[in-house]
Amino acid sequence: MQIKLVEVGLRDGLQNERIILGTEDKVRVAKGLLAAGVRHLEVTSFVSPRWIPQLADATQLAHQLPSLADVVYRALVPNRKGAERAAQTPIHEWAVFMSASETHNRKNINKSISDTYPVLREVMEMAKEQGIRVRGYVSTVFGCPYEGKVSTAQVLRVCEQLLQMGVYEISLGDTIGVATPKAVKSLLQECQQHIPLTQIAGHFHDTRGTGLTNAYTALEMGVRTLDTSLGGLGGCPYAPGASGNLATEDVLYLLQQEGIDTGIDLARVCETSEFVQTKCRRPLPSKVLQSHLAQKRQEKRGDES
Amino acid sequence: MQIKLVEVGLRDGLQNERIILGTEDKVRVAKGLLAAGVRHLEVTSFVSPRWIPQLADATQLAHQLPSLADVVYRALVPNRKGAERAAQTPIHEWAVFMSASETHNRKNINKSISDTYPVLREVMEMAKEQGIRVRGYVSTVFGCPYEGKVSTAQVLRVCEQLLQMGVYEISLGDTIGVATPKAVKSLLQECQQHIPLTQIAGHFHDTRGTGLTNAYTALEMGVRTLDTSLGGLGGCPYAPGASGNLATEDVLYLLQQEGIDTGIDLARVCETSEFVQTKCRRPLPSKVLQSHLAQKRQEKRGDES
Repeated sequence: MQIKLVEVGLRDGLQNERIILGTEDKVRVAKGLLAAGVRHLEVTSFVSPRWIPQLADATQLAHQLPSLADVVYRALVPNRKGAERAAQTPIHEWAVFMSASETHNRKNINKSISDTYPVLREVMEMAKEQGIRVRGYVSTVFGCPYEGKVSTAQVLRVCEQLLQMGVYEISLGDTIGVATPKAVKSLLQECQQHIPLTQIAGHFHDTRGTGLTNAYTALEMGVRTLDTSLGGLGGCPYAPGASGNLATEDVLYLLQQEGIDTGIDLARVCETSEFVQTKCRRPLPSKVLQSHLAQKRQEKRGDES
Repeated sequence: MQIKLVEVGLRDGLQNERIILGTEDKVRVAKGLLAAGVRHLEVTSFVSPRWIPQLADATQLAHQLPSLADVVYRALVPNRKGAERAAQTPIHEWAVFMSASETHNRKNINKSISDTYPVLREVMEMAKEQGIRVRGYVSTVFGCPYEGKVSTAQVLRVCEQLLQMGVYEISLGDTIGVATPKAVKSLLQECQQHIPLTQIAGHFHDTRGTGLTNAYTALEMGVRTLDTSLGGLGGCPYAPGASGNLATEDVLYLLQQEGIDTGIDLARVCETSEFVQTKCRRPLPSKVLQSHLAQKRQEKRGDES
């Protein structure tokens, strides 16, 4: 079984952290991840720097990333202005994003769902001109911080609009981490009536500890792409102090034990996460990372005694 | 589907925490759990107080717990001496314990596996005289901190010896939290050739973030009893700083969302865990607890502004 892990720590992780990592540090993180074998990295977002100061260095970062033949760098592109900026960089792939829930879409993008489509269509046209592939993100597919449960019909409507625009893949986001396997199975069962699951990515958050279980359920259903964040970097903007993105290390450990090779070296990812953790000045949420660091401390004590 | 949760925080949780909770505080925790609807509590261990000072107050605690008709209190009983102490208390159920791995058994009990059986048999006989049911714990069933992988044949040998002695249930412990679903399925498939899964409890640790996924896998296989610890209380003695027991809250949240009623009120468990967290002076590992506390802080800020 081939599983594609998309490392979103530098974008989705950092945009939800208090600290702002310098461009040099971000390049160091990217290089660490590349050395570990990561091949798909979402590195930044071309949104207004006023909105997300953590990612204000999008253009500089894009130019400083090492160029490797088999590596795909992706960035979020919210609108025409973002697309104009992104087009001036060597970023390989773009991603457009919106929510399945009307209220979350309005709060996040400042537009209704129906007013969002034309904006994204413009981005899609510019991407086509550039010969750039675009992924689509759909947020709040299992629940919305404002509306509660989101209907599968509404999720599918948004997915179909994005596919019609030409996105090659849709990442379904459990933005507030409310899903459990039952909901994952139910949505994916409905989904695959309309969209091949090879075009679906699972973007799970671990806010309530269910991220890994949901990811495993999605794999069992036939999903082959998962979004993860090194160390579990990035909190939950709707519950500061809670966990956010599913941790790369936790997924990697599980896949390894299940006999699924991703070509990614877990220990080397941990090394990079340890650097990020030092910068964030807080223990990152990944349990595999913490277990790895605890063992490292213990071995060090053993050597000293 | 009926799922039985056995709350092991006061025993397995506290014995791996640095702080020592006073008897009064332990009684407060037990009362909080009872008020939340918990009905099966493992509260202490009648091992030598020199070994586990955190549980040195076993006898006092046992006498101070509220007596309720439908509540089962259980304690670990390692040997004849422990059984003599336990027999003087109103504890309803005992548990004997050993490891599937020879080295872990020696390090933990100071005896070989074969020398452990007669000791436990003596406890079983005393329990029979008292009309007391006994559970059996088998540790390190998926891996040993000293030997690595443990063979299924070895796990089954130990289980069969315990069942022959008369334990009514066996709790299979992933003591160092190394299992993933493949290992859980494989062990349980082998297991159910010899032991009905209704006699098996899943005792998962979350050291590598796989606890909930493994518990869910065990439920899918037919296991109906899970051991959990409030807040995820209790670390990993083999990797200080890493997570230990699977958190009660995380399991409860998943079960609720799956439509499985346990009769336990999640918010009230969180209240009790918050008290324990204050005593431990560190954030407990349960993601549901931390998410709950984050929302509570946010609501409080909302009220104040």
